[in-house]
Amino acid sequence: MQTTQHYQAAFLEHLKTFTFEKEPKNLYQPIHYILELGGKRLRPVLTLMTAEIFNCDSKKALDAALSIEVFHNFSLVHDDIMDAAPLRRGKQTVHEKWDLNTGVLSGDAMLIMAYQLFENYDAHIFRALAKLFSKTALQVCEGQQYDVDFESRDDVTIPEYLKMIEYKTAVLVGAAMKMGAIVANASEEDQDKIYDFGRLLGIAFQLQDDYLDAFGNPETFGKQVGGDIIENKKTFLYLKALEFSNASDQHQLKQLFSVHLDDSSDKIELIKEFFVSTGSAEVTQKEIENYTIKAFKVLDSLTISEDKKENLKAFGTDLMNRKV
Amino acid sequence: MQTTQHYQAAFLEHLKTFTFEKEPKNLYQPIHYILELGGKRLRPVLTLMTAEIFNCDSKKALDAALSIEVFHNFSLVHDDIMDAAPLRRGKQTVHEKWDLNTGVLSGDAMLIMAYQLFENYDAHIFRALAKLFSKTALQVCEGQQYDVDFESRDDVTIPEYLKMIEYKTAVLVGAAMKMGAIVANASEEDQDKIYDFGRLLGIAFQLQDDYLDAFGNPETFGKQVGGDIIENKKTFLYLKALEFSNASDQHQLKQLFSVHLDDSSDKIELIKEFFVSTGSAEVTQKEIENYTIKAFKVLDSLTISEDKKENLKAFGTDLMNRKV
Repeated sequence: MQTTQHYQAAFLEHLKTFTFEKEPKNLYQPIHYILELGGKRLRPVLTLMTAEIFNCDSKKALDAALSIEVFHNFSLVHDDIMDAAPLRRGKQTVHEKWDLNTGVLSGDAMLIMAYQLFENYDAHIFRALAKLFSKTALQVCEGQQYDVDFESRDDVTIPEYLKMIEYKTAVLVGAAMKMGAIVANASEEDQDKIYDFGRLLGIAFQLQDDYLDAFGNPETFGKQVGGDIIENKKTFLYLKALEFSNASDQHQLKQLFSVHLDDSSDKIELIKEFFVSTGSAEVTQKEIENYTIKAFKVLDSLTISEDKKENLKAFGTDLMNRKV
Repeated sequence: MQTTQHYQAAFLEHLKTFTFEKEPKNLYQPIHYILELGGKRLRPVLTLMTAEIFNCDSKKALDAALSIEVFHNFSLVHDDIMDAAPLRRGKQTVHEKWDLNTGVLSGDAMLIMAYQLFENYDAHIFRALAKLFSKTALQVCEGQQYDVDFESRDDVTIPEYLKMIEYKTAVLVGAAMKMGAIVANASEEDQDKIYDFGRLLGIAFQLQDDYLDAFGNPETFGKQVGGDIIENKKTFLYLKALEFSNASDQHQLKQLFSVHLDDSSDKIELIKEFFVSTGSAEVTQKEIENYTIKAFKVLDSLTISEDKKENLKAFGTDLMNRKV
């Protein structure tokens, strides 16, 4: 198995071949733009890594990895429209740099191009990849819809929240890894296990994201610390704080999460104190650990060498210790 | 071969099985809504008809036919957003009845669901259908982009216009028919020929649509007569009128096509007179006939019975004689 950096480099090299010299320019330039904005390329790296874990040259998985990354960026373009977000990775979002219509249409084209990337595989691999892709992509849409629905509800439960982040974020991590396994012709049992590993790690990853949004280091965290609090997002931290509060604190929390302020710095500090004093912060960290341990347990029964299992665990541990 | 009405009924029965009792409701109800709005169901009927032409039970093509219709409706939902259209088939558009975000997200889900409908076919059929679907869907996006681009250009040529309507409208008609042929295991040569028949008929159909938009009977034409003129759309009629005008008439035409009026009735009459006096109306009718004849010529070399060829010609003739 190679290093993460090796897979990233191989992926970026392959991304260059995904030519955007296509007409009409107004459709394809925004696609080029968003794909070149950067990011950790976590999902495609996992696809390549998983192919090698199952004894397949990772080069064979490059198109599947690219498909996952194109889909991920499609979802960013359309989500940014829905969130009216001006910035993405510190740069203008597609609908800001161009316009709404360009964001909608270029996004649509990306979703289609993600499917086209499976066309170099033979019919049986193609079918397996496309089927997994469709199921996953639809779950991502459903997760996004739940996220929207939750904004106007004040009775969201922890299981509902967990299902939402599973759909919106985690299943794509699972699918990225399963695609590597499919290309490598791994057994269906191994395919399902590596999917579960990725899915559980993906949930831990998103909970970690929620945690860092409040408690991350502003100097290293990529996004604005406190962003979820400013936007009154009902994250795991918030829902657990509510659960652990008495009636009067619940009232105050809900009150604070119903207003939009020009300067949120006091609100952010107050809410963070709630997160700590109620024990929500600690429970959230515990939950991140639980999901990580669950993910690692899945590996035990995989038919791969101990070395490879240790590598996957090291990757997972790195991801969970990240501060960004 | 059965009647159009028979295929329509079979399709509508199958549409009912496409259950929408799915969660989250806010994602799936708009999909149900748009698919139930009606329409001629022209594309799925063509898929079913083509399967039978190539000696296959049309029932086997129902999922492919549904996929085409779901895709077509996806494109309507996103196009209506881009055109800021309040009405579709006389009812509220999805983004009007719900909101922009619902239109974007439900549309995305429909595009994915269209691919899922191929999953009941075996791997080789699946691959052929999905590949044709992706190519066609991307062309539809490109056609939509050209259409948008043309709005702000005043040097659009006739070949460019024809390519735009080919991509935006005609290739989907060709693909609808080719999918029937794929499901029926027709030879690749026959598949390509029936695709071309559909594509050429699709171009004739769109030119006819342009013609009826100006010269259709307001009592039977489904849309507002003169709609393209009100919106200054550079249709075939307009481009040919420009080509056949002297410099001073060209100037007046361009002038008229640069303004938006509260009451366009005088403008519509004036432009229609231009269309007639320049000879553009006549040339457009001739062009519709040319494309129809070209489509019929393709049939000659198809390896199907004369009866079936006559049926396809009758269908095409009906389509071209329509007043709606």
